[in-house]
Amino acid sequence: MDQLAVRLHPSQPLDIRLEAVPIPTIQHPDDAVIKIKFSGLCGSDLHVYRGHEDVNEIHICGHEFIGHVVALGSSFHSGSPPSRPALYASLKIGDKVISPFTVSCGECQYCRLGFTARCVSSLVFGSPALQGAQAQYVRVPLAGGTLFSLSTPSTSVDDPLSLPQELSYLPDPTLLLLADVLPTGLFVVLQALTHPKLAPIFTGIPWPRNVVLDVGIVGLGPVGLCATLALLDYLVRADVRHRIVAVDPNESRRAKMQKIYDALPGHARGESENEFIITDIPDAPKVVQAWGQGGCRTVLEVVGNPSALTLSLSLLAPSGILSSCGVHQAHQIPFTGRELYNRNVSLEFGRCSAHSIFVPAVELLLRRRDVLGAIGESGVVDRIVPLSDAVRAYEAFEKGVYGKVVFDPWT
Amino acid sequence: MDQLAVRLHPSQPLDIRLEAVPIPTIQHPDDAVIKIKFSGLCGSDLHVYRGHEDVNEIHICGHEFIGHVVALGSSFHSGSPPSRPALYASLKIGDKVISPFTVSCGECQYCRLGFTARCVSSLVFGSPALQGAQAQYVRVPLAGGTLFSLSTPSTSVDDPLSLPQELSYLPDPTLLLLADVLPTGLFVVLQALTHPKLAPIFTGIPWPRNVVLDVGIVGLGPVGLCATLALLDYLVRADVRHRIVAVDPNESRRAKMQKIYDALPGHARGESENEFIITDIPDAPKVVQAWGQGGCRTVLEVVGNPSALTLSLSLLAPSGILSSCGVHQAHQIPFTGRELYNRNVSLEFGRCSAHSIFVPAVELLLRRRDVLGAIGESGVVDRIVPLSDAVRAYEAFEKGVYGKVVFDPWT
Repeated sequence: MDQLAVRLHPSQPLDIRLEAVPIPTIQHPDDAVIKIKFSGLCGSDLHVYRGHEDVNEIHICGHEFIGHVVALGSSFHSGSPPSRPALYASLKIGDKVISPFTVSCGECQYCRLGFTARCVSSLVFGSPALQGAQAQYVRVPLAGGTLFSLSTPSTSVDDPLSLPQELSYLPDPTLLLLADVLPTGLFVVLQALTHPKLAPIFTGIPWPRNVVLDVGIVGLGPVGLCATLALLDYLVRADVRHRIVAVDPNESRRAKMQKIYDALPGHARGESENEFIITDIPDAPKVVQAWGQGGCRTVLEVVGNPSALTLSLSLLAPSGILSSCGVHQAHQIPFTGRELYNRNVSLEFGRCSAHSIFVPAVELLLRRRDVLGAIGESGVVDRIVPLSDAVRAYEAFEKGVYGKVVFDPWT
Repeated sequence: MDQLAVRLHPSQPLDIRLEAVPIPTIQHPDDAVIKIKFSGLCGSDLHVYRGHEDVNEIHICGHEFIGHVVALGSSFHSGSPPSRPALYASLKIGDKVISPFTVSCGECQYCRLGFTARCVSSLVFGSPALQGAQAQYVRVPLAGGTLFSLSTPSTSVDDPLSLPQELSYLPDPTLLLLADVLPTGLFVVLQALTHPKLAPIFTGIPWPRNVVLDVGIVGLGPVGLCATLALLDYLVRADVRHRIVAVDPNESRRAKMQKIYDALPGHARGESENEFIITDIPDAPKVVQAWGQGGCRTVLEVVGNPSALTLSLSLLAPSGILSSCGVHQAHQIPFTGRELYNRNVSLEFGRCSAHSIFVPAVELLLRRRDVLGAIGESGVVDRIVPLSDAVRAYEAFEKGVYGKVVFDPWT
């Protein structure tokens, strides 16, 4: 049985093709096969598309999907040992599931410590090691440790992985944000705001609470938009006065950021003294300089290239935190030891542990469903495109003409 | 009036001279002049000595000193406003003082947030901008925000900067450790262990408390010794099982580390399952590999050059924390974006805010006075040398023949 899939042919960069390939089957007792309702096109797909990643095998692209279980391996049964992730005991054929963009076992030390992105068995969907989700079906290894079920509310209220019932009322393209961009946006924010260097600002010890927290965001793609919403949500709920400068060279991305900000209810923006400024790259340092605090206490880098790192460091105050979620490539880090020492820089790099942060991302989605639920010009999801138009959608997304694209593989 | 001082002549690297120079005087109302009892020779003096720093003016070296107040500017009087650091109201001629190695005002936003090393008025002793302490007298700018008094116990028990009375019973060369090496050793430890990524290990949530925390220490100079003592103190008091690999290419440094460890009372090393292994560079990766956890959760880099950074990253587990207090120079950071992303690395760089961390360092000194108070082969302070022998001491310290040197400027 064949299905439709978007495959990268690494012989030439930028060569992606819509092809008929076999429907995946169970290969291991821990596998599940999912019939895909929607899948996403993500900025990090472009790294492969542009030939930046060392990819040398044909594979199906895409790492975001929502769908229904159509096959389960033999590990899935009610007698599954309680030492295993709970989903092995409860997942059933027909259940609606969302997957974080990486596979994680839920059993190794990394998973138990919350670093599911660095699970010893971790794989990323849409890579030569694991076929992706821009298709009609996808095989999920270690599915009991990886997936979240929208059909099986947890039997225990204490289960930290149980999803609230109201989530199932949201449209599927909106729920798809939970696969990567919303958790990753929240991750880059938490990586910054939970850093001990910022504790005095949130606790008021020893500095009074009326300090103004200046924050920079470099990159306003879909993850940057989600990071901005996560940042505002955190700062307003913590009642911390703030000024945010959000930077992107792409005018249409800046316009979308402005529309989303304008659509926020007043209480989601906080006090009127707060500032939110969207700028092109050349104006960003001027904004920060005018604030007069020597730079931003933290800058979120949501791009993944050396010039974004350089811009981020230039906006950062001494003793600041550069929090990065960009998928960086083989380039050398463009900083000297002296500038990092002389400015007491903290740097946070890496992939979001989307499974660990999934439930907080769900809570954020529910609080901001008004904005995150929009599709179109003023939504994080820019448009829904038939999978048969994927080649054209890649081109338009790469040029910045399309924002976040969701594929419907059945039209 | 002249005094004896060690001065660097930057025309030629490695050119330091013992010279007669004028005794400093009050130049600003916030100044104090200190008659030095002892001053220190520190690893970071060697960066200048070796010509790594861009230093182009003759200046007095040294940034560690303990001594007595012999002159005070007009800001020091009982009517000094309460908005200013308390020492402006209480410091008197004759008081015994210790100084952190950097000047800080205690009034700017950086000082108030605890980043005294990045005070807007910060200066480092022993630089062209501020004459150093390898002399008989030193001028201290912003002295009310900078110094700690051993003579004036705070009038308020709530004063977070008050020093315990028992401190004054310790010998002066031991107290001199509080100027830089002990706070900096504690700093590099706290920078690692208070990182939110390690919180699950210390809180037991969600991972059970019986996890073993593997830690690397790269560099066993005086700061590395202090960092090791601070690390053991923290881990034992938190009751966290641990394995530590302490690395240095210099055999005499490794021998001193072993002597200090052997001198620790049993309760300061914790449970017998804990491991403490001292190795040369080539054996360090083998030790970590044999532990089988994929690397150390955190590595403390206490050297300040690219090869120390490279070694540190090689010892680090995915999602680990590289905590650096090394004084890095103009070299490029020897990491690629991809390796930092792919391993979710957190990096902490910079200078210790010694004023902020001074009181916790005092508490550590008092708990470990048995070991930190030793002078000689099994002590952090290796030897006390007349200032008149400073040129020879620099040479021996640079070659690793001498450990931590304390100068007596009056013999």
